[in-house]
Amino acid sequence: MWNLTEADVDAIAMGAGILGTGGGGSPYLGGLRMKQVLRQGHSVQIIPLEEVADEAAICEVGWMGAPTVGVEKLPNGDESLAVIDALEKYIGRTIDAIACAEVGGANSMAPLEAGALSGKPVVDGDAMGRAFPEMQMSTLFINGVATTPAAMVDEKGNCIIFGNMITSHAFEKFARDLCVQMGCTSLIAAPVMSGAEVKAHSVPRTLTLARNLGQAVLDARAKKKSFVDAVLNVTGGKEIFSGKLVDVQRRTIAGFARGSMLVEGLGSYRSEFMHIAFQNENLVAWKGDRDTRGEVVASVPDLICMLESDTGEPITTEQLRYGLRVNILAVPCTDKFRTEKALKVVGPAAFGYPEVVFEPLPKTPGQGIE
Amino acid sequence: MWNLTEADVDAIAMGAGILGTGGGGSPYLGGLRMKQVLRQGHSVQIIPLEEVADEAAICEVGWMGAPTVGVEKLPNGDESLAVIDALEKYIGRTIDAIACAEVGGANSMAPLEAGALSGKPVVDGDAMGRAFPEMQMSTLFINGVATTPAAMVDEKGNCIIFGNMITSHAFEKFARDLCVQMGCTSLIAAPVMSGAEVKAHSVPRTLTLARNLGQAVLDARAKKKSFVDAVLNVTGGKEIFSGKLVDVQRRTIAGFARGSMLVEGLGSYRSEFMHIAFQNENLVAWKGDRDTRGEVVASVPDLICMLESDTGEPITTEQLRYGLRVNILAVPCTDKFRTEKALKVVGPAAFGYPEVVFEPLPKTPGQGIE
Repeated sequence: MWNLTEADVDAIAMGAGILGTGGGGSPYLGGLRMKQVLRQGHSVQIIPLEEVADEAAICEVGWMGAPTVGVEKLPNGDESLAVIDALEKYIGRTIDAIACAEVGGANSMAPLEAGALSGKPVVDGDAMGRAFPEMQMSTLFINGVATTPAAMVDEKGNCIIFGNMITSHAFEKFARDLCVQMGCTSLIAAPVMSGAEVKAHSVPRTLTLARNLGQAVLDARAKKKSFVDAVLNVTGGKEIFSGKLVDVQRRTIAGFARGSMLVEGLGSYRSEFMHIAFQNENLVAWKGDRDTRGEVVASVPDLICMLESDTGEPITTEQLRYGLRVNILAVPCTDKFRTEKALKVVGPAAFGYPEVVFEPLPKTPGQGIE
Repeated sequence: MWNLTEADVDAIAMGAGILGTGGGGSPYLGGLRMKQVLRQGHSVQIIPLEEVADEAAICEVGWMGAPTVGVEKLPNGDESLAVIDALEKYIGRTIDAIACAEVGGANSMAPLEAGALSGKPVVDGDAMGRAFPEMQMSTLFINGVATTPAAMVDEKGNCIIFGNMITSHAFEKFARDLCVQMGCTSLIAAPVMSGAEVKAHSVPRTLTLARNLGQAVLDARAKKKSFVDAVLNVTGGKEIFSGKLVDVQRRTIAGFARGSMLVEGLGSYRSEFMHIAFQNENLVAWKGDRDTRGEVVASVPDLICMLESDTGEPITTEQLRYGLRVNILAVPCTDKFRTEKALKVVGPAAFGYPEVVFEPLPKTPGQGIE
């Protein structure tokens, strides 16, 4: 159990940015809001999964939307309380604790802000161990946790309750349509889970992991050491490329930022090229030449993380632009995404790449995402 | 107060079809279901507005969707109970009576079926006195009645609660998107109103009017008298054209059946042409030549009703086809749609015809839609 400090917010913002694998939205704005909330005298406790009672009522709180819109359309600040209030009113009982749906990107901050404003503790874990663009891509939903009841609000005051959804895909589709209608960003509290479900199916200790990862990068930067080594030490990943961004194709479609990029190798990667496809998050990395994708080097559900070479800052796909120099790292995902059942939902085929075979990166026990 | 009989169902189906002005969906399928419900031993009481207690909780029950889809995609039969149940659970109290949102078309039957299955009485009135394609086009919402709380279900078991919508237009947009996602038909229970609100803003006695109108046409048909005269006697309308349908343009867009038709005059209308634009319902009728629309003869919010010349059957826009012989009647709408405030929502400009000036048809007191 730990209490969030302003220094933790900076570390989590950095770590969550890296775990966001290009998506999940930048945690920068959420981090600024979070620090303001702490300065207003609020506090938030992060509690380990083991401390959660089996019969507790827990909900995730997180943003849905296109990160390209999220950087321009600011929240009104009351969404967290509004969405929890709507859900509590609907279920007729108090929510005991907040969970993190997605530790990667902006959704690392959403549960912390909700916890601080509502006075509820936040559980140390999440349902992805990274960022993913769709809601059914969750260790909880994949393992049969119901997606409803759920609540969804926008910054204008509209509020929707999902009483029943026949599948998690239906939930994703309905919520995504509403999100587009809400102006491409909305806050969701979903689902209402028992403590037993959260303990059984979450990726454990990922808020702590994000903090430790971010702190390691910040320390390396301060001591002028290699931030790539810092990331690899904490996550057990490996560097797969470094170079200069020479092309990016990007469109905002149906609430997603979809596209692809081309990176030209520098240093030991000179005269090689890396192609990366993304849907909010980086999905598949191929090493080839300028015109052909070549061999798959890493793919979902493993993480493809991109850091700016000068500063170690994680780069989100909406920030991609010609000339950026980047280090590209691949990080092994949670074991909960490596089952046959999970790969149907989060493997390359689920994103439209049936020809890509997921080759799991080797993992070191006790290191990285559990 | 009256109890619905099977004969009433036939009469209301006919009358509601005429009041549907081409839209609202055919009441035929709903009428079949309603008769089956009556044969199963259910009954339903239609009570006058005056008998509703001020503090009663009342909700409308009605279908949303494209009529073109409604003729192919059948309900599962449990939607009425599911949607009322979801709403009662959300507000934590019993709904006392059901109201009709739209007496024109299929939504004349929806509240009757909901009333029969739930054992709740149905209020004799509605919020349109006709059919209209969008939910904000309601005498209740125009006069400030809140659109939420509301519930929405589909035949697959999905259930959404609208906790708060900032405007009735937002409600329409959110619900329409969800409806498309639900496969273009869904059942809505909305909003929860007080008896006082329903009494102040409904169009009164329209279920009785639909029954009387339909019965008059059925009687005329049986006695081989003019069904056109029968309609004009009950509604106080006038015939504006008769002829043969020679062209129809129709597309299903964003959940609506939009289009236009061309009718070539016969008899006393020979060598004249009528153009009619529709969005589910007939919107504007122009009299001109084959290629140009000419002068406006009738427009929303007044009713433009089309009857098949041989049988007197009302024709819905999804049934339009080359060669149909039709009588076209214009019927004065409720006074509640003729105010300046209402015309902003239901006048020609609201449907994309700012150049059309609404010229109210003359009304005879005590006749037709009040």
